[in-house]
Amino acid sequence: MNDRQLRNIVDGLGGKANGTPREDGFDITVASEVMAVLCLASSLSDLKERLKKIVVAYDINDNPVTCGDLKAAGAMTALLKDALKPNLVQTLEGTPAIVHGGPFANIAHGCNSVLATKTALKLADYVVTEAGFGADLGAEKFFDIKCRQAGLKPAAAVVVATVRALKMHGGLKKTELATENLGALKKGLPNLLRHVSNVKNVYGLPCAVAINRFPADTQAEIDCVKEECEKLGVKVCLSNVWAEGGKGGEELAEEVARLCEVSPSGEESFRFAYANELTTEEKIDVIVRKVYGGKGAAFTSNAKKQAERLRELGFGNLPVCIAKTQYSFSDDPQLLGAPENFEVTVRNLKVSAGAGFIVALTGDIMTMPGLPKVPAAENIDVDENGNITGLF
Amino acid sequence: MNDRQLRNIVDGLGGKANGTPREDGFDITVASEVMAVLCLASSLSDLKERLKKIVVAYDINDNPVTCGDLKAAGAMTALLKDALKPNLVQTLEGTPAIVHGGPFANIAHGCNSVLATKTALKLADYVVTEAGFGADLGAEKFFDIKCRQAGLKPAAAVVVATVRALKMHGGLKKTELATENLGALKKGLPNLLRHVSNVKNVYGLPCAVAINRFPADTQAEIDCVKEECEKLGVKVCLSNVWAEGGKGGEELAEEVARLCEVSPSGEESFRFAYANELTTEEKIDVIVRKVYGGKGAAFTSNAKKQAERLRELGFGNLPVCIAKTQYSFSDDPQLLGAPENFEVTVRNLKVSAGAGFIVALTGDIMTMPGLPKVPAAENIDVDENGNITGLF
Amino acid sequence: MNDRQLRNIVDGLGGKANGTPREDGFDITVASEVMAVLCLASSLSDLKERLKKIVVAYDINDNPVTCGDLKAAGAMTALLKDALKPNLVQTLEGTPAIVHGGPFANIAHGCNSVLATKTALKLADYVVTEAGFGADLGAEKFFDIKCRQAGLKPAAAVVVATVRALKMHGGLKKTELATENLGALKKGLPNLLRHVSNVKNVYGLPCAVAINRFPADTQAEIDCVKEECEKLGVKVCLSNVWAEGGKGGEELAEEVARLCEVSPSGEESFRFAYANELTTEEKIDVIVRKVYGGKGAAFTSNAKKQAERLRELGFGNLPVCIAKTQYSFSDDPQLLGAPENFEVTVRNLKVSAGAGFIVALTGDIMTMPGLPKVPAAENIDVDENGNITGLF
Amino acid sequence: MNDRQLRNIVDGLGGKANGTPREDGFDITVASEVMAVLCLASSLSDLKERLKKIVVAYDINDNPVTCGDLKAAGAMTALLKDALKPNLVQTLEGTPAIVHGGPFANIAHGCNSVLATKTALKLADYVVTEAGFGADLGAEKFFDIKCRQAGLKPAAAVVVATVRALKMHGGLKKTELATENLGALKKGLPNLLRHVSNVKNVYGLPCAVAINRFPADTQAEIDCVKEECEKLGVKVCLSNVWAEGGKGGEELAEEVARLCEVSPSGEESFRFAYANELTTEEKIDVIVRKVYGGKGAAFTSNAKKQAERLRELGFGNLPVCIAKTQYSFSDDPQLLGAPENFEVTVRNLKVSAGAGFIVALTGDIMTMPGLPKVPAAENIDVDENGNITGLF
Repeated sequence: MNDRQLRNIVDGLGGKANGTPREDGFDITVASEVMAVLCLASSLSDLKERLKKIVVAYDINDNPVTCGDLKAAGAMTALLKDALKPNLVQTLEGTPAIVHGGPFANIAHGCNSVLATKTALKLADYVVTEAGFGADLGAEKFFDIKCRQAGLKPAAAVVVATVRALKMHGGLKKTELATENLGALKKGLPNLLRHVSNVKNVYGLPCAVAINRFPADTQAEIDCVKEECEKLGVKVCLSNVWAEGGKGGEELAEEVARLCEVSPSGEESFRFAYANELTTEEKIDVIVRKVYGGKGAAFTSNAKKQAERLRELGFGNLPVCIAKTQYSFSDDPQLLGAPENFEVTVRNLKVSAGAGFIVALTGDIMTMPGLPKVPAAENIDVDENGNITGLF
Repeated sequence: MNDRQLRNIVDGLGGKANGTPREDGFDITVASEVMAVLCLASSLSDLKERLKKIVVAYDINDNPVTCGDLKAAGAMTALLKDALKPNLVQTLEGTPAIVHGGPFANIAHGCNSVLATKTALKLADYVVTEAGFGADLGAEKFFDIKCRQAGLKPAAAVVVATVRALKMHGGLKKTELATENLGALKKGLPNLLRHVSNVKNVYGLPCAVAINRFPADTQAEIDCVKEECEKLGVKVCLSNVWAEGGKGGEELAEEVARLCEVSPSGEESFRFAYANELTTEEKIDVIVRKVYGGKGAAFTSNAKKQAERLRELGFGNLPVCIAKTQYSFSDDPQLLGAPENFEVTVRNLKVSAGAGFIVALTGDIMTMPGLPKVPAAENIDVDENGNITGLF
Repeated sequence: MNDRQLRNIVDGLGGKANGTPREDGFDITVASEVMAVLCLASSLSDLKERLKKIVVAYDINDNPVTCGDLKAAGAMTALLKDALKPNLVQTLEGTPAIVHGGPFANIAHGCNSVLATKTALKLADYVVTEAGFGADLGAEKFFDIKCRQAGLKPAAAVVVATVRALKMHGGLKKTELATENLGALKKGLPNLLRHVSNVKNVYGLPCAVAINRFPADTQAEIDCVKEECEKLGVKVCLSNVWAEGGKGGEELAEEVARLCEVSPSGEESFRFAYANELTTEEKIDVIVRKVYGGKGAAFTSNAKKQAERLRELGFGNLPVCIAKTQYSFSDDPQLLGAPENFEVTVRNLKVSAGAGFIVALTGDIMTMPGLPKVPAAENIDVDENGNITGLF
Repeated sequence: MNDRQLRNIVDGLGGKANGTPREDGFDITVASEVMAVLCLASSLSDLKERLKKIVVAYDINDNPVTCGDLKAAGAMTALLKDALKPNLVQTLEGTPAIVHGGPFANIAHGCNSVLATKTALKLADYVVTEAGFGADLGAEKFFDIKCRQAGLKPAAAVVVATVRALKMHGGLKKTELATENLGALKKGLPNLLRHVSNVKNVYGLPCAVAINRFPADTQAEIDCVKEECEKLGVKVCLSNVWAEGGKGGEELAEEVARLCEVSPSGEESFRFAYANELTTEEKIDVIVRKVYGGKGAAFTSNAKKQAERLRELGFGNLPVCIAKTQYSFSDDPQLLGAPENFEVTVRNLKVSAGAGFIVALTGDIMTMPGLPKVPAAENIDVDENGNITGLF
C-alpha cells in the first residue's frame, strides 16, 4: 500500500478485544524484508528457513522475536509458494526475459531473484542482470550480497553511463544539458572512471562502458568519454537500444561476449570487496574507502551500540547493505564527481536476519521513496469494454 | 486483513510528510462496501458508478466525501475489472456452480453477485441461490435488496432447517440434542413456521422446507416437523446431500421443480416486504412487524438524527439492510422460538451509497466477526514440494 | 484541564524510554474520583485510606489495580493535605459560608465536603447544604451517599423551584415564559409535587418549598403553586434573596427553623431510599421506582456483566451514584413533568472504590460537560497594574 | 507533570466533539517557554507581550501560530500575575535570598528571573547570581541572553570548581577520586583554565576561582590548582560554606568585593561573545570557536533549512541558546579536559519567540531529563497529624 498515511500508525486501539496498543507502520512491498528474502532464497525450503529468521520485534528484554517464534513461517511460505517461481516475459522484439522480484536498492540488495538468475543460467548462453542505482550501490550489492550468498561468479560487467549525467557531475544544472560543454564533461568524468576502476580493480572483472546516447550528445562529447575510458583499457560502446531495439546494442553485445572469453576469465579473477570475518563496522569502513573513495566510516553512538548488540545476537558475520544517496559517492547528495576525504556517517544499523545482511542507514537517507503530489490513481480509468487507460 | 490489531488505528503520524493524523481502521474484505458494490453491480459501467458514490468520509461541514470526489473510482474499477467476472467451479460430482462474491450477511446483503445469478439464468434451467443466516436476514435481504435492485423474480423458495436447531429454539442446550425430545421440538417449531409463513405470505412465494438430516434425528421428530409444516400447505423434504450427493436431494429437487410450475407462478405473485417510498424508519418498522413478528422498531436519539440527516442528503428512498443477531427473530440473542411483543432498537444508521442501501445496526451487533484464540495461520505449512497443509 | 482535546489520548509513544502505549484520557477536576474522595473523607487518615482504594486500571486478568498498588497514596495525600481543610468565605452581607469541594453532581455526589458540614455543625445553630441539580439527583445523593457515609441526619429539607421551570415542565419553550400561563403551570406542577413527596414520604423529612421569584412571575401563578403544595401540607415561601439579601429570605428561614422543631423531628424520621444489603441492580431499581416514579431499571447486557463482576470483587454493598439527565425524572431529557411507566436503561457500571459508591450511567448521559464555542479564556485579560478582567 | 508517559501523545481522539487528532506532548515545567518568558520579563506588560509571541504551532502553510493568535495571552498573564513577583526566602543563617524561576539550563537560559536580579540590585550592596551547569553553558547564557536582554552589566565573576571534577577531566573514574593524583589533576586543569580565560578574555570580566573543598582533597592538589590559576592572574579561594556557613566563604567574599573595585571596572569592560547582527549560524559558530575552543559549527541540512526559515520569519537577530552536553566543551560527552579541533553539530533550530532566543540542539542532547527507576512519589507519605515524610 503506497500510502504515506500508513507509514506511522498506532494500532490495537479500542480495548482489549482489539489487541494491544503499539506504534507500528507499513512499508512499501519492495522495502519489506519479505521481498529481499524471496529474491535471495535458493529453494522453497530455504525460503521457509529465511522467513522463520525475520526479526519482527524485540521483546521487553530486547531479545529478537522472529516470524518463526510467531509460527507464521509456514503460512507465509504457502502464500509465497507461487510467487517464488520466476516468471518469463518478452521484450518488444520477442526476446525472452525473466523479470522476478523487486527488492528496493536501498535497504535491500536491488537486483532480481537468485532463482531467476540460476534458471536463466541453465537456459541461455549469456545472462545479463541489471543492478539498480549507481555501481557503488547496485553493483556493490549485487557482488557482495547476492553473488556471495548464491555462489555466483560473473564473467564481466557493463557500466552504463550518459553524457548528460556526467555533465551534471561536472556541475551543470538539469536545464543546461542541451548544449555541448566539454569542460563540464571533463570535470564529471572522474565519477565514471571511479566506477570503472571499482569494477576492474576492486572486484577483478573485465569491464565495458555503455553510453545510453541522447539526441543532444555531440560527437566531441562522446569521443571525450571514449578517450578517457580507453586510458583505463576499457572499451566504450554506444547503445541505441531505446531507438533501434536489439540492433542498437550489437556493438556492446559483441564487446561483452569478447570480455567473457578473456583469460584469466572473470569467474577466476572475481573477488568480493570485503571478507565475512571483518566486523560490521570494518566492512562498512572498507566499502567507504575502497568503493566510495572516502576516508572512512563514522558511527553515531547509537549506531555503535547497535553494532555491538547485533554482534552479541550472532549477526556479526553477515554482509552489509548500505542505504546511501544515489547522487554521490558520499552520503551528501551535493558532493558530485569523484569526491575524496569525506566521511560517511552511519546513524542506524538493523539486521535483516532472513535476507541475511545488516542494513546501514547513512546520511539523511529515508527508507521510503517520495510520492507525487497528485496520486497516479487519479489518471487511471477503465471504459465499458474493460480497456484500462492512464497507467503510464 | 483479518487482524483485530488493525480494527482501530490512528494513522498519518510522523509529521506533515506522512499525512494528517486521523482515527481510522480496517474492515475485513467481506465487510467492505466494495464487496457489496461488486455483488450488486450489473455491468462494468455500473460498477464504476457505484464505486463513485461510496461515502468514505464526512467533511468539516458534515457533507459526504465520496470515492468520486477523490477521483479514485477509475483506478478502483481497473483493480476490480477481472474480479467482476463470475467464476465457475464444480461440485465433487462435477455439477457446475458459480461461486462469486461474499458480502457479509450483516452490514451487507449476504448473497452472491447479481452478475453470477444473471449469467446462471442464461445457462441453466433452474438457478438456486443461497442466502446466508436465517430467512429473516438472508432471505429478507435477498428479496428486498438484491431482487429489488436487479429486477429478479424468484419462482420458489426453500427454507432449510434442522431438527437440532429447532430443539435449541425449544430450549435445549447444545449438549442435549443427541436424544429424542418431541416436547422441545414442538416448542421450537413455531420458529420454522414463522419463516415459512414469511416466505409464503409476506413475499408471496411457493415454498418447500428442506431438513438437513443428522444421524441422531429420530423418525418421530421428523414426522412431527412434517406434520406441522403440512398444516401450512408446505411439503417437507429430507436432504441427505451431505452423505449421498445429488441423489440425497432428489425428492427436494422434484418438489422445487413442481413449485416452479404452480399457477399463479412465483414470478407473478412475488412482492417486497416494503415500498421504496416509506421513510427509513418506517421501512425498518415494517420489517420488524411483518418479518420478525415484533411490535415495532425503536430508535435511539442518535439513530433518529442520522435518519434525518440521511434524508436531507437524498438517501431517504434506499432500501434498508438490517444488522441483527442471527440467533433470534428479535435483537436479543436469548429470545428463542417465535417471540412476540418485542421491540428492536436501532442504534446506528449509515448509508452504503454505492451499494444502494442504508445499514441499520440493532441491539449489540458488532460488524466484525470473532477470531479464534490461536490463529489458523499457525497450522498452515508447505513442504519442499509445495504441498500445502493445515488449511482446514 | 478543561480541554476536550485531552479527553481521549494515546500516550507512552516514542519508544520504550517514554513508557508503554495505552489509550488514556483526562477528566475535569470535578469529575475525578479524587474530588469525590476529598469530599467524603472524614479525616486525613481516612483520605489516605480512600485514595489507596481508587481503582485506576484493570490488569491483564481483569483484576483491579489501585493507587495503593502503585504506592501513590502517600504522595497524593501529601498533595491534598491542605486542600482537605474547609475554607471559610463570606457572603456580600458578611455571613460566613464554607465553600469546600466540588464533586460533579453526575458521576459523583454533587455536594460539599463532609468535613465542611461537620465543621459547620460545630460552629452554627443551623447548617444549610446545597445539593446540585434536581432533588431526584442532588437530594437523593446527599441523603443516600453523603448522609449514609458520614452518619448525618438532616432535620428538614427545602425544595427550591421557579415558576418558569414549572411552566417549561408544562410544555412551554424558553421564549414563552414571559407571560402568565396558568394552564402550563398546572401541567408542570406535578414535577414539583413529586419532588416534595419524595422528600416527605421517601426520606421522611419535614419540607418547605422556596420559590426563587422572577420579575415576570404573576401573583396568580404564585398563588397556584402555593395552593397545590399546601394540599401536601407543605408551606411555600417566596425567596427574594437575589434582590434583597438576607432580608429576602426571612420568611423561608423562619419556616425552616419551625420545621426543625416539629415532633417527631427530622433526625428521628429520616430514612434512606434503600438498604446497603440490596444488590446493585436492586438499588437502582428501587431509586427508579420510589424516587423517579418509573416502572423500573433495565440493564444492557454489558451493564449486567459489570454488576456481576463488581459483586465478585466485593463491591456489591456500596451505595449507587446514578448519572442521569437533570431535565427529566426519566433518562430521556424530553419526558417532562411527572412521567410514569418509563424504564431507565443502565448502560455502564463502574466502581469508585475510594469514594465508596458504584456509578451507573443511564440513557445518553456523558461524563463531561459541554464547553462554549468560544473559550472563556479569550475574554480574560490583566492590565499593567495587575487588575484582572473578563473572569465573569 | 514529570511523567515520561506523556512526552509523546496523540490527542483529540474520539470524534469531532473532542477536537482534532494531532501529535502532541508534554514538557516539564522548567522546559516550557513559559518559564523562560517569566524569567526574562521586565514587567507585567512585558510578560503579556512575550506570552503573545510564543509560537505554539505552524499552520498548513508553515506560518507560525502564536499564543496571541489564539487570544490566550491575557488569560495566561492572569494565571502568572502572582508568580511574576520575586519571592524572598532565607538561608539557614538568616541571610535573605531571592529564589525565583527555574528555566532549564539547556533549552532555556538557566538562571533566575530578571525581576529577581533587578529587585535584589535595589536592596543589596552585592548581588550574586548562580548560572547553572559549566560556565560554557550557564555563564555564556547568563551573559549573552539575560544580561543582553535586561541591560545588566556584571562587575565580576566567580568560576566554581572542585578538585574531584578536574581529576575526572584528567581521565579518572568516579571511583578513583578518593586518593591524591596530581598527574590526573594536571591533565584536567586545562578545562578550568579555559573557563577562566573565557570569563576574562571573551567577556572582559575580573574573575575569581572558588574551590568547593571536599574532605579527600589534599593540600598538594589544592596548591596545584592555585598555582596554575595564578599564572592567569586569578586568585583561587577555598570555600567551606557547606560546612561552616558564611564564615567558610569569607575569603572568597573579600576577593569578590575587591574585584568589584578594580579599574577599569567589570561594568566598563564587560562585552558579549557575539553581536546581534551576525546570522544564527555565525553566532553559533562564534560560540563554538571563542567559548568552547572548537574549530566551528556544522549544521545538518535540516538545521540549515530551519535557520533560513527562521530568518525569513524575522527571527534572524535573536541571540542563540545552545543545548549541549554539560560534560564536555564539545558536543561529545566523552571529550574531556580542554579538547580542540572538534566540530559541534547542530541538528535542530527552533525559535522561542516569547523568550527571545533561538534554541540550537547539538549532538545527541535530549530536552527532557532522565527519571529514576523508582518514582520519588513512592517514598512520600503523610501521617495523621499532617507531617509529610520522604520528600528528600
